Amino acid sequence: MSNNIVPLTELISQFERLPGIGKKTAQRLAYSILEQPPERAEKFAEALINARKKIHFCKKCQSLTDLEICSICDDPKRDSSVICVVAEPRDVLAFERTREYTGTYHVLHGVISPLDGVGPDQLRLKELMARLSDGQVTEIIMATNPTVEGEATASYISRLVKPMGIKVTRLAYGIPVGADLEYADEFTLARALEGRNEI
Amino acid sequence: MSNNIVPLTELISQFERLPGIGKKTAQRLAYSILEQPPERAEKFAEALINARKKIHFCKKCQSLTDLEICSICDDPKRDSSVICVVAEPRDVLAFERTREYTGTYHVLHGVISPLDGVGPDQLRLKELMARLSDGQVTEIIMATNPTVEGEATASYISRLVKPMGIKVTRLAYGIPVGADLEYADEFTLARALEGRNEI
Repeated sequence: MSNNIVPLTELISQFERLPGIGKKTAQRLAYSILEQPPERAEKFAEALINARKKIHFCKKCQSLTDLEICSICDDPKRDSSVICVVAEPRDVLAFERTREYTGTYHVLHGVISPLDGVGPDQLRLKELMARLSDGQVTEIIMATNPTVEGEATASYISRLVKPMGIKVTRLAYGIPVGADLEYADEFTLARALEGRNEI
Repeated sequence: MSNNIVPLTELISQFERLPGIGKKTAQRLAYSILEQPPERAEKFAEALINARKKIHFCKKCQSLTDLEICSICDDPKRDSSVICVVAEPRDVLAFERTREYTGTYHVLHGVISPLDGVGPDQLRLKELMARLSDGQVTEIIMATNPTVEGEATASYISRLVKPMGIKVTRLAYGIPVGADLEYADEFTLARALEGRNEI
């Protein structure tokens, strides 16, 4: 059952196109906009336009930024000899949250996935190779997701980079901190056993 | 940990202000906007502005509409002698989904809630009373939520309307269709017993 108010239907369908937002939630969100002062909708609209217009990819690491070179690449305190290679811009934020990583990043904007028609040429690989050409980089940390595509991408890049004499590492597999062993899947547990460390 | 891209932070905070959207979801939604073509953000912004600008309250039932009189009030096939009184515009949609109700609506835009400083004067009650004055309405269905405030509002309006010789009814309480008795709370079960019907 739809309302038959065209502008409302359109707003609901815009919310519905967002990832993880279903029909019911989209309706709830659209109504919430209508219940608030018009300035609220205007601010929201402005933020959407602004973000999309002002944010682009960092010339160096291909992460998101509103500057030419992002604040991480531009920070002299970051160790530019280490590059953490991730699939998506949001992965950068995940690593930054750890407050442990002091190297730089490179965002591929995807992973190799033949089924979806994504080959190495669709990724920001050329830009990564360009960064490696001056011999300053000593380590590449492959931080793509632990999925088939993420693994394939990691090993593809590893084969490209290793001959250049650059160390290539991969994130450790294992049990998540705070997790219950009972609920760990067998593949994760097997990897955790494999990678066990002396204490 | 925040990214330090101002337009991105602003977009995330706009998403975060929506009901039921937490920090993580807001981030995911904001990034999804950046990953899509700029036209997508523009369409979204336009839908927000449009909806807020074109949609207002129906002069008659106070529900949302982009016309002067909403399509339900304006429909000669709807029975205007019955008014279903609801708290919020979204409740109208819930009843329309049943495809069972053929009467009209009246939206109060809130319920009486002394703790939140909402008294009868803040509701669209004057507008309801005006609709009752011509003697055409024979029944008012009080369809506010089964909460303390919803009940108080229902009985307040009932006391106002009954002396006018108009029938006032309340939605039936009982077990939800398809629910498991085991999980029904005692108040609902008690009401379901009370309201039992012969079969």
